[in-house]
Amino acid sequence: MHFEYKTQTRYSDTAQDGIVHHSSFVIYLEEARLAFFKSAGLDINAIEKRKVLVPVVDLSVKYLKPLRSLEEIFVQVSVDTFSKVRFSLSYQIFKGDLLTATAVVSHCLLNEAFKPIPIPKEFLLHLEKFKSS
Amino acid sequence: MHFEYKTQTRYSDTAQDGIVHHSSFVIYLEEARLAFFKSAGLDINAIEKRKVLVPVVDLSVKYLKPLRSLEEIFVQVSVDTFSKVRFSLSYQIFKGDLLTATAVVSHCLLNEAFKPIPIPKEFLLHLEKFKSS
Amino acid sequence: MHFEYKTQTRYSDTAQDGIVHHSSFVIYLEEARLAFFKSAGLDINAIEKRKVLVPVVDLSVKYLKPLRSLEEIFVQVSVDTFSKVRFSLSYQIFKGDLLTATAVVSHCLLNEAFKPIPIPKEFLLHLEKFKSS
Amino acid sequence: MHFEYKTQTRYSDTAQDGIVHHSSFVIYLEEARLAFFKSAGLDINAIEKRKVLVPVVDLSVKYLKPLRSLEEIFVQVSVDTFSKVRFSLSYQIFKGDLLTATAVVSHCLLNEAFKPIPIPKEFLLHLEKFKSS
Repeated sequence: MHFEYKTQTRYSDTAQDGIVHHSSFVIYLEEARLAFFKSAGLDINAIEKRKVLVPVVDLSVKYLKPLRSLEEIFVQVSVDTFSKVRFSLSYQIFKGDLLTATAVVSHCLLNEAFKPIPIPKEFLLHLEKFKSS
Repeated sequence: MHFEYKTQTRYSDTAQDGIVHHSSFVIYLEEARLAFFKSAGLDINAIEKRKVLVPVVDLSVKYLKPLRSLEEIFVQVSVDTFSKVRFSLSYQIFKGDLLTATAVVSHCLLNEAFKPIPIPKEFLLHLEKFKSS
Repeated sequence: MHFEYKTQTRYSDTAQDGIVHHSSFVIYLEEARLAFFKSAGLDINAIEKRKVLVPVVDLSVKYLKPLRSLEEIFVQVSVDTFSKVRFSLSYQIFKGDLLTATAVVSHCLLNEAFKPIPIPKEFLLHLEKFKSS
Repeated sequence: MHFEYKTQTRYSDTAQDGIVHHSSFVIYLEEARLAFFKSAGLDINAIEKRKVLVPVVDLSVKYLKPLRSLEEIFVQVSVDTFSKVRFSLSYQIFKGDLLTATAVVSHCLLNEAFKPIPIPKEFLLHLEKFKSS
């Protein structure tokens, strides 16, 4: 089971080689992730107001096909692995049927002092649901 | 009298038309401004730790010549006008002798509740010093 | 008459002061502008393929209210002024009923050699239609 | 043997959680890479003028310590592996003595038609020199 997020590449996402810059894909992943969180009742703004941070600890992207500006893309998010203190989401970025990139991004939860804290049960249940089988 | 800041355009600052994107100039202005503040003993991180914000309230840029990636640029900052609650800095962005853009950016100071607060005397004195005559 | 574009602020659009960075507003303006162009049958990718550039020559933004991440915004675009070689669009960025920023952005058209060229008649007609009275 | 590049985190590189956004590290890697290329007599602008592209095909970053705005950082670049059509650079990002991130980024060379082309001998020699033993 996966979550799907739809967005559009921006003109300013491109660079002088005429294609979307590789760093912009990292932004698309985050957009999709935060929409996925929100769909689970977890708004990042609300989380951070409770002094919890959800930093990226590991990021890996494979670039398969270039994207141009103003292209509609779909980001599929599913849960890769998770423990009580860390979770990894896997991503596929499609332009129509064309797979343009895949990625895995891992996170932990930190308190205000930047110390790792356990993932709340309610979120673990949500992760279980979206675990790729 | 003006403050001068030197930086370099980045590859990722460009867009598909092959030149530096107009939004990147806005970043160069901020870089120069914060270096100018720092030279006045005003580190933005320290200011914000004291729960004071220095938002942009007005921004105006004239683009005269295009910039390419990896070009060395110089940003000259001087004080345009200031009152007890607001100040405007004016900027000139040079590539060598070539003036590529001019700008004026205005700011106020806000407290945590986003209410305007007076500009500290020490900063007013610094503004006076860099006032373009 | 105006064109309306809807988008959402991104997490990565914010900075450490907790609000959307002023440079991100400049990106929203461009997104809205290119959607406006597209609605007029003028796709920027197609325009640039014909070796025509549409650079920003002048940009002015007034910031009225802060935006936070993941907020839905509406950008209203209308035509401010235009001549045979230059046009200015005016913008209002709303969060619900709240006007958060206004802007005017001016453009010219350049050929491959960066020389100004006249605005095509078909585009002038479109500009006329969206001229704010 | 490694190449070292020095830069500074920008205010606009941060996000609302108060630290430098993970996507900004990807920009620092590119800055360091293009400076490394330049030191080898390979200016990216000159390369692209010859209609050769050097896209990222694989990117992996481990985030170890957060960075704040306006911090001086050092990016160490060395050659990880390379073949006749692909090369991987490895990176370490330091703040003083503190290792804040490590990364590996892989590239191929493409012609105008987006077809892979062999890496020029002169560049292979340079890669050999910076190969981490």
